[in-house]
Amino acid sequence: MSSGDIVSFHCPTRLHFGHGALAVVPQIVTGAGWSRVMVVVDPALVGGIAYNRLMADLSGSGIKLCEFSGVDPEPGDINVDRALDVLNAAGADAIIALGGGSAIDVAKAVAIVATNGGCIADYEGGDAFNVAPLPLIAIPSTAGTGSEVSGAAVITDTTRNVKMAIRHARFGPATHAVLDPTVVATVPGQVAVHAGVDAFVHAFESYLSKLANPFTDAWNLRAIRVLSGNIRPYVANRENADAALNMLCGASMAAMSFGTTGTGNVHCMAMAIGGFYPVPHGLANAACLPHVARFNFIAAPGKYAQIAEAMGEDMHGCDDLSAGRRAISAIETLCDDLGVPSRLRDIGVEKAALPEIAERCYALNYNRWNPRHTTQEEFLTLLQTAY
Amino acid sequence: MSSGDIVSFHCPTRLHFGHGALAVVPQIVTGAGWSRVMVVVDPALVGGIAYNRLMADLSGSGIKLCEFSGVDPEPGDINVDRALDVLNAAGADAIIALGGGSAIDVAKAVAIVATNGGCIADYEGGDAFNVAPLPLIAIPSTAGTGSEVSGAAVITDTTRNVKMAIRHARFGPATHAVLDPTVVATVPGQVAVHAGVDAFVHAFESYLSKLANPFTDAWNLRAIRVLSGNIRPYVANRENADAALNMLCGASMAAMSFGTTGTGNVHCMAMAIGGFYPVPHGLANAACLPHVARFNFIAAPGKYAQIAEAMGEDMHGCDDLSAGRRAISAIETLCDDLGVPSRLRDIGVEKAALPEIAERCYALNYNRWNPRHTTQEEFLTLLQTAY
Repeated sequence: MSSGDIVSFHCPTRLHFGHGALAVVPQIVTGAGWSRVMVVVDPALVGGIAYNRLMADLSGSGIKLCEFSGVDPEPGDINVDRALDVLNAAGADAIIALGGGSAIDVAKAVAIVATNGGCIADYEGGDAFNVAPLPLIAIPSTAGTGSEVSGAAVITDTTRNVKMAIRHARFGPATHAVLDPTVVATVPGQVAVHAGVDAFVHAFESYLSKLANPFTDAWNLRAIRVLSGNIRPYVANRENADAALNMLCGASMAAMSFGTTGTGNVHCMAMAIGGFYPVPHGLANAACLPHVARFNFIAAPGKYAQIAEAMGEDMHGCDDLSAGRRAISAIETLCDDLGVPSRLRDIGVEKAALPEIAERCYALNYNRWNPRHTTQEEFLTLLQTAY
Repeated sequence: MSSGDIVSFHCPTRLHFGHGALAVVPQIVTGAGWSRVMVVVDPALVGGIAYNRLMADLSGSGIKLCEFSGVDPEPGDINVDRALDVLNAAGADAIIALGGGSAIDVAKAVAIVATNGGCIADYEGGDAFNVAPLPLIAIPSTAGTGSEVSGAAVITDTTRNVKMAIRHARFGPATHAVLDPTVVATVPGQVAVHAGVDAFVHAFESYLSKLANPFTDAWNLRAIRVLSGNIRPYVANRENADAALNMLCGASMAAMSFGTTGTGNVHCMAMAIGGFYPVPHGLANAACLPHVARFNFIAAPGKYAQIAEAMGEDMHGCDDLSAGRRAISAIETLCDDLGVPSRLRDIGVEKAALPEIAERCYALNYNRWNPRHTTQEEFLTLLQTAY
């Protein structure tokens, strides 16, 4: 870090992690003296091992509960309104979210509206509310979006049909995050790939961001090491608890950073593609990753060398340029090993849409963060190369 | 991480850092709406550049101030009592600490007693108070003890003549930490060496601790890289602002970890020696470091290899054992370059005292954390080797 900027770093979430970490949830609730808790759960998890264990532990500790499982995959304000009705009817004063980014984001939104009033659309953007939300314990079921520690929630405004980002540096993150490998043991293989690549891209792009700093570097380089070292065995066998716990930790590390640094062109292109086609976010990320990695290389060969080192490449005798290029080949090998499509044509994107996607990419203004300035024409070339 | 333990990690302090970061202090105070602030300052800093700038900025922003500079090098309960009188007389509701560990620890203690009542001796040990202390902005003048982010304060009970550790995982750390290289630019060379080695030892021992976890690994390995890469140019020229900022960041990273992991035999021996001789803590650490590094090696050769990598060693073609040994030689070279005494005889320890020091080392029970179990006899051998 050598620029004259003054930056700040903060992660208010308390992390609890380990094999069987779910068991701490009742202690957190009773220790904090919360009287009644709403569990927001992904409907696909209801009746599963983690859900059953959590609910039995909570009930067994005498904690009064209500439950909301009406979480859509791309959750909307309607989900938030319904969850709020359940919360208010039960008089709950804290929330537990069990699920992927969708369930956690709905829980965050309900926590905000419960204490600030109005509706979630009132709080779109950054730091648009002033009252602390209800306390939230986030238990991720994928590794992952990192929503359990990030300060943002993404909720669709169903009236305007736009995705709203609700961000708050201080009040956005969950109060507690619980990382337990048993919760991610039953994830389908393709979801594990998409979520894991998403987490890797968070770390990769946050590290390369123009706004990276020594603290985000620490999280991101460790996340790159932990995620790239564990994603293969985790995808091969999601019941590999050591690999799963490392994936969860790596995903959280990256998500503690990207709120400060932003991400880069991979996320930019995936966001734009997601606006045109119903492609899973992680899959769109994966298809763009190797192409953007090659494009951005000249912006920071030295950082690419650090990435290669974190990915376990042996760079003996390499100068920075050739060491840095090892990161690109390591990323290509990773995507190959995971069977990730590396072509936009393979994930349902149409060639005729590329100019409009490029226009949207440029408009999203990721040049605030991406290390190589990218024009609309360069986005089009990148999309054509990736096609 | 593969053990069955459930652990937690949290750092509630908001960090602000960069060249000229002192300038954010008035914004923090006015943004939080604090009415009157007490500045606790190391007397050696009064009238210096950082002090003058801070006081001018605060006064210029219309912030009401009172000041306490009666901080002894090894601060005692008397310092805390006097500072509390100043605070109460002025009706201050927040504290700014400008100084090394002593000034920050006094400020932490005052903040606790101000809201919890009684005297600081009432709160010795862990989590012994329940009310949040007054808000605190910590501005370290050394890199460093890391007191600006750690959850502990060390205050001497002058009645019993013992050092008390007052720790609180949630309420112990400062609300804000401000890392500005101009504040550490006027540190004497020997203080820079001792404080810098202390910070390196925090990272080294926290990483090797039995209680290390993926999150502390991220902080500690980055801290080892940043501290070992910047301590030479920083000691050579404390006005090298880039090196100074990196030292401050590295010291904070390590201090965000050791509250969770504990430290190891280097700190254990330095604590014990400090109980017999008035040796600066950092100097005692430095004299013990290479000897303990050799002793602990067999506990974790793979971790030593990671340390060697973080210290920039080229380990091409090395197996873990020989790669790990590179960490030991890198540490020896570092101590040599800094002109650190590597013999206890050179820092005033007497040979006849070694058995009693060994007894004290064993009694301190650092075997909770140190990676190699160490008997009293082994402590004596270590001390004799280091003599």
